[in-house]
Amino acid sequence: MSNDPVKVLVDTVLKLQRRGAHKPLRKILDGTHPADLARLIQFLPEHQRAPIFQRVEELSTRAEILSELNPSILEDFLEALKDEDLVTLLEEMDPDDTVDVLVAVGDERKTRLLGMMRSEEVDEAEALLKYDPESAGGIMSPDAFALTEKTSSAQAIATLQAKGSELEMAFYIYVVNDHDHLVGVLSLRQVVMSSPDTPLSQIMDPDVVRVNTSDDQELVARIVARYNLLAVPVVDENNRLVGLVTVDDVIDVIREEATEDMLRMAGAGDDIELGLDADGVISSTRSRLPWLFASWMGGVAASFIIHGFEDQLSKVALLAAFIPVIIGMGGNVGTQSLTVITRGLALGQIQVDQLVKVVMREFFVGLSCGVIYGILLGVVGGILARFDIDNLQFGNPITFGLTIGASLCAAMIIAAVVGSGVPMIFQRLSIDPAVATGPFVTTAVDVLGILAYFGAATVLMGI
Amino acid sequence: MSNDPVKVLVDTVLKLQRRGAHKPLRKILDGTHPADLARLIQFLPEHQRAPIFQRVEELSTRAEILSELNPSILEDFLEALKDEDLVTLLEEMDPDDTVDVLVAVGDERKTRLLGMMRSEEVDEAEALLKYDPESAGGIMSPDAFALTEKTSSAQAIATLQAKGSELEMAFYIYVVNDHDHLVGVLSLRQVVMSSPDTPLSQIMDPDVVRVNTSDDQELVARIVARYNLLAVPVVDENNRLVGLVTVDDVIDVIREEATEDMLRMAGAGDDIELGLDADGVISSTRSRLPWLFASWMGGVAASFIIHGFEDQLSKVALLAAFIPVIIGMGGNVGTQSLTVITRGLALGQIQVDQLVKVVMREFFVGLSCGVIYGILLGVVGGILARFDIDNLQFGNPITFGLTIGASLCAAMIIAAVVGSGVPMIFQRLSIDPAVATGPFVTTAVDVLGILAYFGAATVLMGI
Repeated sequence: MSNDPVKVLVDTVLKLQRRGAHKPLRKILDGTHPADLARLIQFLPEHQRAPIFQRVEELSTRAEILSELNPSILEDFLEALKDEDLVTLLEEMDPDDTVDVLVAVGDERKTRLLGMMRSEEVDEAEALLKYDPESAGGIMSPDAFALTEKTSSAQAIATLQAKGSELEMAFYIYVVNDHDHLVGVLSLRQVVMSSPDTPLSQIMDPDVVRVNTSDDQELVARIVARYNLLAVPVVDENNRLVGLVTVDDVIDVIREEATEDMLRMAGAGDDIELGLDADGVISSTRSRLPWLFASWMGGVAASFIIHGFEDQLSKVALLAAFIPVIIGMGGNVGTQSLTVITRGLALGQIQVDQLVKVVMREFFVGLSCGVIYGILLGVVGGILARFDIDNLQFGNPITFGLTIGASLCAAMIIAAVVGSGVPMIFQRLSIDPAVATGPFVTTAVDVLGILAYFGAATVLMGI
Repeated sequence: MSNDPVKVLVDTVLKLQRRGAHKPLRKILDGTHPADLARLIQFLPEHQRAPIFQRVEELSTRAEILSELNPSILEDFLEALKDEDLVTLLEEMDPDDTVDVLVAVGDERKTRLLGMMRSEEVDEAEALLKYDPESAGGIMSPDAFALTEKTSSAQAIATLQAKGSELEMAFYIYVVNDHDHLVGVLSLRQVVMSSPDTPLSQIMDPDVVRVNTSDDQELVARIVARYNLLAVPVVDENNRLVGLVTVDDVIDVIREEATEDMLRMAGAGDDIELGLDADGVISSTRSRLPWLFASWMGGVAASFIIHGFEDQLSKVALLAAFIPVIIGMGGNVGTQSLTVITRGLALGQIQVDQLVKVVMREFFVGLSCGVIYGILLGVVGGILARFDIDNLQFGNPITFGLTIGASLCAAMIIAAVVGSGVPMIFQRLSIDPAVATGPFVTTAVDVLGILAYFGAATVLMGI
């Protein structure tokens, strides 16, 4: 959006800061939502971020800003904060956000900060730190609101009122038995609307959708999305209720996973790196270089193959001219199939045992597109050969057109099959089909396309 | 997931249906969550979908299944249902879901169905049908729960209790003035915890984040995600409260928009087409063909350019061998930049006025990667030329290696600049940067890469 309000905010804040107009600056910062302040910080020049952040008066607002900051700038931002300030903020934040910050600062500073924090916060943080950051345990908040089966509606409401603002997000009340095992769920509305002395066990729903601490965050997101939940309880291996993942965290996971899939498919790392300085360039280069190696190897292989056909090329120089279109079209068809299949798998719209059906389907799509563009290219190739007849030492414009057309069609079919088969097989082997399939598929398609091309030339033109 | 429970369900249901074991079949269907039934239907063979669906006894469950069905199979599925059955379902569904179905059946049947529905449902549906399906008005539910400013807490609770189960999703209570203008918001918890005779105007928060009926669904999703909301109220141009978008709908929008962006970038249409029959192949072919045309045109342009350099190729045949690696690496670098920038723009992490900074940054990333792989390729090219010295009528292995290396580096820089500049410029022109930038960028990179290649050969080898 070109009319994003944060742009105006950035300009105003920088102007006031430059002028030293601290009072109006503070007034603006106080009147802005923490989520917008987090975006403001992100669009400030790097050296201005910490100073403006420190001007926000409310500790709770500063804590919230910190928890909303984009991962791509979080690390550098944390370096600009003093340990004492950071500890005060960590103690104010929700435990799951505290842990995110502790993970971002690196092991050495993490140990130092934990040593400075209040012991109760340390215990909570350490309990969460033992989970994989991308698992249900890693994204959950440990404050699930649970009551026992025998609690009455009236007691439940009294407890809720006593807890007050701690429970802003308590839409579900979980019910546990004497062993802390999760046995039921009910909504705040159900409690409010039942008669005061009904025990919760009578009004609760015993079928609770739940996830395990070790479940992948992608699975958690899929479950919340599938069943339209506002929160999902997290249990340990003994079905003991240990936490809660709320829908706002799930939204972050869904966006993060979509970003990760897109970047991985393009071979551009896992996170969006946007640092505009030298460090940003270096870290981007580092995350993109390895995937380019696959493409480089494939390209060199293609070079050696073409070099092997140099004899044919010297007889029909025009063959070289059509190499880019053959491999380029193949690459695009491969990317189309790959994207559709990878996304279909991620959304659960394709099952892994549909391999043969799915690949057959893409085969026919590749064939249809291949026949159409093959005929078009064959005609163009034939005409070009007709005008360049002197250089055509073998075959004739018709066999040349046939070669070009048939091999384009073949390359497109190969691309559709490889582009759909590879992610299906990766999924079956439990490898994320988004990981580097992009460079892998285009490289395979390049090599196979060139072999098809020179194969067709050898057979059809009799070179 | 290979252990998806829906697979087991599909097998069991098909077995029972084949055996005519209707009673156990019904029992299984009754015990399954509607969201899982929707997924079951999706993975059944097409001719079995409607018969199994009809076996689900509860009308409300069937309605819910229908609202959860994947858009990619919804159209065909609806054709298998009789008008009378569909009308009963439509009357049971939430108005926003009813409208989705009415849009999917096509204009003719929509008019027929509206003629058969109860007039109150028709009014609601027609009110929603006038909005763009991808706007806030198009995805909202018209049942926002609102009370007037003067209502007391006690009255509010009484009204809530009277409304009962209609309000499953009422986490916020919106407050309106005498003109139905939205003036405040409060949570159910705030009402429960205030003293009974407090008027809502005293406890409400007057700063309500809201969206307009005409706002794009992507903006709605971004606002709900940014402020961690469970629902956002929708107002008309006069600030009158007309509906509500809940977080579960927002999750669907976020997934849909991510899918759309991925497919568009790959030039594979807007929706995942997964039909495994002939119709599916035809509609997939139709959605992919146009984008391939850009690539085809670019490829043909490249062919003509190479044809123009035929003289140079005949002198140094080895030049042809390195065409694929130059344009392939360029294509991959372009896709990397394109993906990072397009996703950064979609997530609001890059602002459109950062054009120069962003392109400069990608220039340096392209340069870094280009220098590294350029040197590697130059060495390989030089060695290959050394062993093929007889065919090298111009230059020497060193100038050949220099040509290959320098032009790879140039192609990669060009790709990074085009891959980042094009989406930034598209965004500034208010064109979705995901639309077909993929084929567009790779095609531009092909043509420019080849020009750089033969340009370098002409200058460095003096051909």
